[in-house]
Amino acid sequence: MRALSDKEVLRKLEALGRKVYRQIEKGIEPHIYIPVRTLANTIWDEKRRILVLGPKKARRDFFDIGESKRFMQTLLMLSIIIRARREGDYPTIRDLYYTGKHTIEYVDEKGRKQREETWNNQNESNAVIQDIEVATGLLREHMGIMHDAKGKIVGNVTVRSKGYTIDLSRLGSGAYAIPPNADRLEIVKVDADYVLVIEKDAIFERLNEEEFWRKHNCILITGKGQPDRSTRRMVRRLWEEFELPVYVLTDCDSYGFYIYSVFKSGSISLSYESERLATPEARFIGVMVTDIEEYKIPRNYIIKATDRDIKRAKELMRYPWFKESKAWQSQLKLFIKKKEKVEIEALSGHGFKFLTQVYIPEKISQKKWIE
Amino acid sequence: MRALSDKEVLRKLEALGRKVYRQIEKGIEPHIYIPVRTLANTIWDEKRRILVLGPKKARRDFFDIGESKRFMQTLLMLSIIIRARREGDYPTIRDLYYTGKHTIEYVDEKGRKQREETWNNQNESNAVIQDIEVATGLLREHMGIMHDAKGKIVGNVTVRSKGYTIDLSRLGSGAYAIPPNADRLEIVKVDADYVLVIEKDAIFERLNEEEFWRKHNCILITGKGQPDRSTRRMVRRLWEEFELPVYVLTDCDSYGFYIYSVFKSGSISLSYESERLATPEARFIGVMVTDIEEYKIPRNYIIKATDRDIKRAKELMRYPWFKESKAWQSQLKLFIKKKEKVEIEALSGHGFKFLTQVYIPEKISQKKWIE
Repeated sequence: MRALSDKEVLRKLEALGRKVYRQIEKGIEPHIYIPVRTLANTIWDEKRRILVLGPKKARRDFFDIGESKRFMQTLLMLSIIIRARREGDYPTIRDLYYTGKHTIEYVDEKGRKQREETWNNQNESNAVIQDIEVATGLLREHMGIMHDAKGKIVGNVTVRSKGYTIDLSRLGSGAYAIPPNADRLEIVKVDADYVLVIEKDAIFERLNEEEFWRKHNCILITGKGQPDRSTRRMVRRLWEEFELPVYVLTDCDSYGFYIYSVFKSGSISLSYESERLATPEARFIGVMVTDIEEYKIPRNYIIKATDRDIKRAKELMRYPWFKESKAWQSQLKLFIKKKEKVEIEALSGHGFKFLTQVYIPEKISQKKWIE
Repeated sequence: MRALSDKEVLRKLEALGRKVYRQIEKGIEPHIYIPVRTLANTIWDEKRRILVLGPKKARRDFFDIGESKRFMQTLLMLSIIIRARREGDYPTIRDLYYTGKHTIEYVDEKGRKQREETWNNQNESNAVIQDIEVATGLLREHMGIMHDAKGKIVGNVTVRSKGYTIDLSRLGSGAYAIPPNADRLEIVKVDADYVLVIEKDAIFERLNEEEFWRKHNCILITGKGQPDRSTRRMVRRLWEEFELPVYVLTDCDSYGFYIYSVFKSGSISLSYESERLATPEARFIGVMVTDIEEYKIPRNYIIKATDRDIKRAKELMRYPWFKESKAWQSQLKLFIKKKEKVEIEALSGHGFKFLTQVYIPEKISQKKWIE
């Protein structure tokens, strides 16, 4: 999938605004169609193995009293984003919230003065950004909207950005901080056998300091826990554009399993992004429940799972991609039964070199992963 | 301050172990002296303008029943760290916790079987790492201990690490992720007028995308909220080794003021690190309480301060470096009185370009900072 130019992005945004303008010109009641972002309109695409948005669209009418506020919020946000793109600004989602926030004063039908905020909190302004995303097919990253970016990458890969060529194997003890819009990077050269996605930043740092990626000819990426969109996009692109296998290394707990799930198939609340962000063939090489015996994890390294962990695991069992997988069903069932979780660092009980010299290479070469 | 070689680090660690070994050889009761890390032994060094550890040391005796566990924990951790250094491993603090965690079984004086864990949680193992830091004068970073690293840097500065030369002005939309041990970087060239430390990652991303650092010939750094040690170390080094002025940009709230305070003078709980991590001349260019009027922040952008904010502000007023500053005393008093906080993004009310084209340049060129 080709990255859109700034011009194309602007054109798509303006097209949405122009539609409403034409309606007014023609004397038609202003309205827009927005794809529905609810669970009921989220579909599991069996073939592509990702969650996608279904075909349902909602008509949002300016003259419907229940919808006029959201309609106005959407056009207000659209106009702010278009202005930013025209002037080459890169506002954050918080900037957009403040820029659009103001008080509208009006006189109601009974002659009383009324005051209404355009939006009261960032949830409201973020929601209309999402509406604009699904209505235009653009991600907010493409619209030049900035936000936190947690991801780091290092390894035998070369990227180009703003005219610079950056060799991610020549960064020493540091790493490359992935920008909020991973599509601002052109991946020009990859000389790696696989991508290793690491849940925990500290483990990423350790593997980087030991130059694991050089010894094993791979690319290391971390999203620091629950990954953000640009980290997921980067993983997806390495899989899609370079056909690299992707392995995800997490703790043995519901949180770790869920992180894998987000990399693999996307999240329900942001299903409209899955086709750009999910990596359906990602493989789990984190600690499995059966590994507790297989790798002889000492009893006093085991942590008792909380009720919340168990509840989460039960939810995961119902996710389509976990539901179809016998391996996941049996791991999750065992997790719920044994109520035991284990951190990746518990493997250090077998020596500091165990993780990098035995565990990871063995999981990959002997295909001891689950999908 | 020169970075220590791996050999020197190992020698310092072994020296501590050797002391105890000699005591045993000579038939002396084993003991070690550990500088006391309490508030009572934390001193405000007026001249250097940082918090430092006082001269108090505690003798920890193996044959004192109240101290023997901590004594054993310290030697256990020391032996694990020495082994890692000898074998070139880079364990995380969590790895160290697991590696040392085991159950000691013994028979007590009444013939009963007893079981005792070496440590029950990471607080215990982290505390002895800190003891080893103060006893040896080494930071854990120097000992090759890994942990999360949050910092990012970009701008007209060139670093060298592991033989690679990395030009931080050629990273495109991305940035350089600062490694856990900033001393692994040699700063070889700086062509910048100042360092701009940004509290919020999203603002950092925005300024990076707009290439603020190129237009204003500066270096951008973020520690993503409360900064970690390596981010603070990097800021300190740019100030100390290259005499760059350091400006800190935060929100107008107790949390933002505190972040500035940590960059400037260190934190009380880690006062023994201040001389390596603090930047006593750091200047605050975040939003001040008086800026609410000065920059005409719209009333509906203002957030009500919570009781916790106010409590925190009162604590800040008592910190030595804020106590001596009339400007800080008056800002904090006003904050407590007005109970109003403002985010940096509220400046977007004056247009997206206001922050980068008016606010920051004006604060710096017109010396509108507080120290």
